[in-house]
Amino acid sequence: MSKEQLSIVKIGGNVIEDSSALDDFLQLFSKLEGYKILVHGGGKRATHVASKLGIASNMINGRRITDADTLEVITMVYGGLVNKNIVAKLQGLNIDAIGLTGADINSIYSKKRPVKEIDYGFVGDVKKVNHQSINKLIQADFTPVFCAITHDGNGQLFNTNADTIASELAIGLSKLYQVELYYCFEKNGVLKSVDDENSVIEYMDYGTYEQLKHQGAFHDGMLPKLDNSFRAIEFGVSRVFIGNPTVISDKDQKFTTLYL
Amino acid sequence: MSKEQLSIVKIGGNVIEDSSALDDFLQLFSKLEGYKILVHGGGKRATHVASKLGIASNMINGRRITDADTLEVITMVYGGLVNKNIVAKLQGLNIDAIGLTGADINSIYSKKRPVKEIDYGFVGDVKKVNHQSINKLIQADFTPVFCAITHDGNGQLFNTNADTIASELAIGLSKLYQVELYYCFEKNGVLKSVDDENSVIEYMDYGTYEQLKHQGAFHDGMLPKLDNSFRAIEFGVSRVFIGNPTVISDKDQKFTTLYL
Repeated sequence: MSKEQLSIVKIGGNVIEDSSALDDFLQLFSKLEGYKILVHGGGKRATHVASKLGIASNMINGRRITDADTLEVITMVYGGLVNKNIVAKLQGLNIDAIGLTGADINSIYSKKRPVKEIDYGFVGDVKKVNHQSINKLIQADFTPVFCAITHDGNGQLFNTNADTIASELAIGLSKLYQVELYYCFEKNGVLKSVDDENSVIEYMDYGTYEQLKHQGAFHDGMLPKLDNSFRAIEFGVSRVFIGNPTVISDKDQKFTTLYL
Repeated sequence: MSKEQLSIVKIGGNVIEDSSALDDFLQLFSKLEGYKILVHGGGKRATHVASKLGIASNMINGRRITDADTLEVITMVYGGLVNKNIVAKLQGLNIDAIGLTGADINSIYSKKRPVKEIDYGFVGDVKKVNHQSINKLIQADFTPVFCAITHDGNGQLFNTNADTIASELAIGLSKLYQVELYYCFEKNGVLKSVDDENSVIEYMDYGTYEQLKHQGAFHDGMLPKLDNSFRAIEFGVSRVFIGNPTVISDKDQKFTTLYL
């Protein structure tokens, strides 16, 4: 029996921070057919609120060092402000959205990232996606909206990379669905030369990725996205698309499709 | 056929603000048998965060005037910080909690409070509880945890009194369940004289309430709680208890039970 289709769409900070871009995206998302899940980051909003609260933001290699105060800001901004406004807007578009962290319905269990050279603080690496619990919501015709927070099952919340949450959800739910994963961001896709928007690589397999990576073709922020993408395909996700937010409805444009 | 039982427990700011009191309460709540729902306010935490962000808190008759900036703080603190930490703690106690605003699964629809003498801003009066949607979560064995936020179905979130949310949820769900509503706060119950903790009125009917109200026996903050309680009983809720948080597990102490 063939599985039903599920689209998992991750949007990044640039969409979140621009109210009209977010509205445009949510319109497209609301029209996407079939089962779907939205995953969002929080972008610079958390940095902004932290700074107003007198909490310094400490980033290493694009990852936020998350002390207790910073975790509170993350929980407020990602789990509250951003997530609940997206849910309210989707409800306004007749999508029966439900906002979630990984703590809700024990959906995403993680462990504190081990301390090697750097102690990232309250940052969790995903260990298990509870696809049965999430599926109860999907089957009840609710549309889950995940922010980038997970938990350890013992009362502790963790800050977790949103790209990783999207790929782990995709892998977990591929046991039940034919999953398509969309990474939407400010570029039209994976670019061969960072400065040339027309240099979109339309199809990329793992071998090509490795080769281009060794040539230093990719921006630092692109590497975890691509690593997550190939991991997703390796573990059962049907297709991964990388492109600007309109890619979810318009396939007559350039974007990147990944395959093994 | 007799209906199954559902307990709805509302906790106030004093429990939220005291981390060990909250832990103690959540332990008791986790052991409460049968279906259950938790409703929480946010207490002074929102005022504290607002003040740090340079947003003045403007209270009239104990109600917060909610401008756009204040609504953002409410959404961060109630919907994010407080709600998600409670959810994570309940998961640590093996309760499969799910944190909600009234926007999630369109659970509580409200309208902006009409402007008479005072414009309360983004404050919503509850118009409809979507008991069917909430029941899907209950029947999936999830334990809903509501914060004091609702929505207008058109993308707008509203700040809403947590006592009212608890009573409206209780009324809505009494169509499906035999509902017991608990208002937990810092006193042992409704007191005949505010300064005497031993003056708990153990049983109070509506006639007695009206009589005592006219005598000016009750503190301002008590009146909406009691009005909400009697409204709940009038519209189908089986019983309303008012007392300190231990009342949910220990009935061998003084507390107030209301009846019509």
